[in-house]
Amino acid sequence: MNSQSPTAPSDPIITFDTHPDRYRHWRLTVEDRIATLSLDVDENGGIRPGYDLKLNSYDLGVDIELYDAVQRLRFEYPAVGAVVITSAKERVFSAGANIPMLASATHADKVNFCKFTNETRNAIEEATSESGQTYLCMINGTAAGGGYELALACEEIVLVDDGSTAVSLPEVPLLAVLPGTGGLTRVVDKRRVRRDRADFFCTTGEGVRGQRALNWKLVDTLAPRSRLAETVAKRAAALAAASDRPSGETGMRLAPLARAISPEGLRYPNLTVAIEREARTATFVLQGPDDAPPDDPSGILARGDRFWLLAIARELDDAALHLRFNEPQIGTWIFRSLGDVARVAAYDHFLLKHVNHWLAREISLYLRRTLKRIDVSSRSLIALIEPGSCFAGTFLEVALAADRSFMLEGNFDRSNLPPAMIRPTAMNFGPLPMCNGLTRLETRFLGDAAAMDAIQARTGQDLGAADAEALGLVTFAPDDIDWEDEVRLAIEERAAFSPDALTGMEASLRFPGPETIESKIFARLSAWQNWIFQRPNAVGSGGALELYGSGRQPEFDRRRV
Amino acid sequence: MNSQSPTAPSDPIITFDTHPDRYRHWRLTVEDRIATLSLDVDENGGIRPGYDLKLNSYDLGVDIELYDAVQRLRFEYPAVGAVVITSAKERVFSAGANIPMLASATHADKVNFCKFTNETRNAIEEATSESGQTYLCMINGTAAGGGYELALACEEIVLVDDGSTAVSLPEVPLLAVLPGTGGLTRVVDKRRVRRDRADFFCTTGEGVRGQRALNWKLVDTLAPRSRLAETVAKRAAALAAASDRPSGETGMRLAPLARAISPEGLRYPNLTVAIEREARTATFVLQGPDDAPPDDPSGILARGDRFWLLAIARELDDAALHLRFNEPQIGTWIFRSLGDVARVAAYDHFLLKHVNHWLAREISLYLRRTLKRIDVSSRSLIALIEPGSCFAGTFLEVALAADRSFMLEGNFDRSNLPPAMIRPTAMNFGPLPMCNGLTRLETRFLGDAAAMDAIQARTGQDLGAADAEALGLVTFAPDDIDWEDEVRLAIEERAAFSPDALTGMEASLRFPGPETIESKIFARLSAWQNWIFQRPNAVGSGGALELYGSGRQPEFDRRRV
Repeated sequence: MNSQSPTAPSDPIITFDTHPDRYRHWRLTVEDRIATLSLDVDENGGIRPGYDLKLNSYDLGVDIELYDAVQRLRFEYPAVGAVVITSAKERVFSAGANIPMLASATHADKVNFCKFTNETRNAIEEATSESGQTYLCMINGTAAGGGYELALACEEIVLVDDGSTAVSLPEVPLLAVLPGTGGLTRVVDKRRVRRDRADFFCTTGEGVRGQRALNWKLVDTLAPRSRLAETVAKRAAALAAASDRPSGETGMRLAPLARAISPEGLRYPNLTVAIEREARTATFVLQGPDDAPPDDPSGILARGDRFWLLAIARELDDAALHLRFNEPQIGTWIFRSLGDVARVAAYDHFLLKHVNHWLAREISLYLRRTLKRIDVSSRSLIALIEPGSCFAGTFLEVALAADRSFMLEGNFDRSNLPPAMIRPTAMNFGPLPMCNGLTRLETRFLGDAAAMDAIQARTGQDLGAADAEALGLVTFAPDDIDWEDEVRLAIEERAAFSPDALTGMEASLRFPGPETIESKIFARLSAWQNWIFQRPNAVGSGGALELYGSGRQPEFDRRRV
Repeated sequence: MNSQSPTAPSDPIITFDTHPDRYRHWRLTVEDRIATLSLDVDENGGIRPGYDLKLNSYDLGVDIELYDAVQRLRFEYPAVGAVVITSAKERVFSAGANIPMLASATHADKVNFCKFTNETRNAIEEATSESGQTYLCMINGTAAGGGYELALACEEIVLVDDGSTAVSLPEVPLLAVLPGTGGLTRVVDKRRVRRDRADFFCTTGEGVRGQRALNWKLVDTLAPRSRLAETVAKRAAALAAASDRPSGETGMRLAPLARAISPEGLRYPNLTVAIEREARTATFVLQGPDDAPPDDPSGILARGDRFWLLAIARELDDAALHLRFNEPQIGTWIFRSLGDVARVAAYDHFLLKHVNHWLAREISLYLRRTLKRIDVSSRSLIALIEPGSCFAGTFLEVALAADRSFMLEGNFDRSNLPPAMIRPTAMNFGPLPMCNGLTRLETRFLGDAAAMDAIQARTGQDLGAADAEALGLVTFAPDDIDWEDEVRLAIEERAAFSPDALTGMEASLRFPGPETIESKIFARLSAWQNWIFQRPNAVGSGGALELYGSGRQPEFDRRRV
């Protein structure tokens, strides 16, 4: 059961980079202002062997392609203002997450899979609300479970009204688990379906169709099959026309990442991640820019995806996903940085100055998504702020995302580097909110306006360890005599604790303050789902998830907990 | 593992009624405006055999007494404006929940225990904020885990500053579980301890003492041992002086409930609960009043605890607790009522007219707590609204708390009762909020002001099934031809689903909208705790909770989930 040997992972490594040319499950077509994403799952294209992806059901591989498509649409297609999601199959939209895949997955795989699919659904909503790419779902056949949850992430849902096609969340009655990608929350909180109707809907295996689906707000529009495409095309055109996405601009091509993976870690142009298996740590070293930002937004396109803030976002995003899926035993992520504080701040300044430019906006939103991904990663996060580091603005957010931070007061013995400085920039005061809707500083100083004002007054200034500690920006500021012991002890202690208890504790402490649909999905729904994914009634040998499709009835322990 | 036999419970029944004369673990003293609750746990007084309650650690039996004391202080002591919680033992305040008790409890017992203790902590906060009884905690010795969590529920915390006494939440480092009674949430959300400091605090077994505890906002006041009592007395006097509780009034004596428990169910003067073991249902029949309310508040005291709204609150509260703890296999609670709609409405009107009277306020708050307890019960809730019922105001809240409701349209064949009516009263528009801070109607019609207005316009009116359905107040309104099949099917289906999936689903659908500290504790923290209580790292044979005190080190599965 326990597998504590400090070795490299032996399972095949999962990577998250792909390209529309290589998609096996989605077709992406773009016509002027409207993109269409058609789900056409290759039954034999599972990311792992052992199951068939029937009825447009999906696994992680299908979702990796969707993630890639959502991302590319934003960067590579500046003119696209509406995205239609539909199915290329007859009579079925999607049967949701593949059940044999789920049933055979480890607990950790299930949880990781749900988290990633949730993040992609959230990215769809963010594209709609922030980026001028409104998603519209054309349900042209059965949409069950995760299939309907994908529709729920879209801004509008058009359902074919053919007397038989239904939307459903049949997880509870059929599988004894919860809808794993936000369905329960989005039904009552986003679409505001009355909770008693939601209760009926979520316990009805066959789902709800036609007029009742419309009356209950489960969908927005009905159309007979003969007029379905036309109805959707009209809405898509209207949504695209209302978008602020520019026409006639050149897109930003996202080339494959330059990445080296080894048992020792990861290496990208602007980021290295060193894995220490005995200590169960991964140390991220974030490289600051070695150039100044360009003079104007056209300079971003000229530099392409090597433009520093975009490059570091992509690398950090990729590294976080890699470690989540491929290195589950590496329980602590340590963040360091190398570079020039002023240069990082200059990039922040440049990006925010031009944030009304579509591409600068996209990069800012991508940084936001990447930092959110770190926030919800079930790893302990520690920031080390040392001489030579560049925790300004965007990088300071990484330190603020950490559960704990250490900043060296003064200098290391025999070093001639100047003492570490951090520098708040405008990036720390709005553009990069957490999933609770607050900035990391607002979350840190909940309701303490004076503390926030004191920091805002120092925007653009370099702050040494004493100042940073007094302002509450770092947890501890030991000098070089104490540094090594204090940091080592914190890291060793962390590695000795129960990984599960840390996950629950961190999820509770990281998100004080208000809640949003997003935070509810990660914080509440995920926790319940995690619980149920452990319960014998779902995953035991007589559990519903295990027995699904076997013809055998599950035997439940009837005690309510 | 599965125990599905439809028999009565064989474990000893747990009851929740006690009296200060019978307390084994608490001492309640009242002097004028100030009450003191001293924890002095009887080591040999565990509610189950097999563990010693050392160091003022507690089990359910200790908490049942605390619940009783909090309740009695509100009703029986009108003059008390401040309550001091402290320890009668030397050098130890409380070591928190008893670990051997937790380690030997079933999963369901752990979860039930945590929920009940949470509700009592919430009642302490409600007494402070709503009832003019402010709780003050005097920490005169080690306060660990649940001991410190009890302090966190108090409005102010005074800590002895003796160089050694610490407050701590050592669950994560020592037991591999979470603090189970709101500690994580209250540290960051209520006391607004900075999240990185909270992270340090919650991973430090020895805790934090003295000046750091004060600086970090873990406590409000420090006092040397020599001046501890004096400091607390002074604060308590100030809090009592600021209270609006009346002096010179007679208290409401809470006599033992007239209750009959049998394998068939429960019987109280105003409530019967019929258990059907094959169907796994408990049917509550709530009796409306058979009299009119008194003319003025003095009439409440004259009727004593038989005053109908108080009596029904006590009976409903007791029945819910009984079923939660003693009937875990009874997964569906069905609510019916019998009586006169107008009389229920008259009681609502009376109570709200006099809500500035301390006792009317207490009864209203008790109804609120009782309804909240039903909301967070992990049972499916179904309301049946039939001819002869009296779902007005307070009782309508019970129907609105249900996951689903059925109201008969018209009459049953061969019955000469008039058709069922429901009647909204002012009770439905404010005095009985859910733990998310919204009324049940606001939660039901989230953000739909028109729907709310339409209902409010009908306040005081009797609404038949067609009106009730059109207004969205009931889920379904079948006529007598469909009634039996529809209701039976709903109940049978419910009983067939996985109890765990229902728990997670109901917890997600019942509380859309905003979140409060209370809702976070029940919805998020409880879910994580439930998850961890299932994990081998905590409860497996090599888990930390199992091995605590054995001298053996737990062996963790190191994979982060």
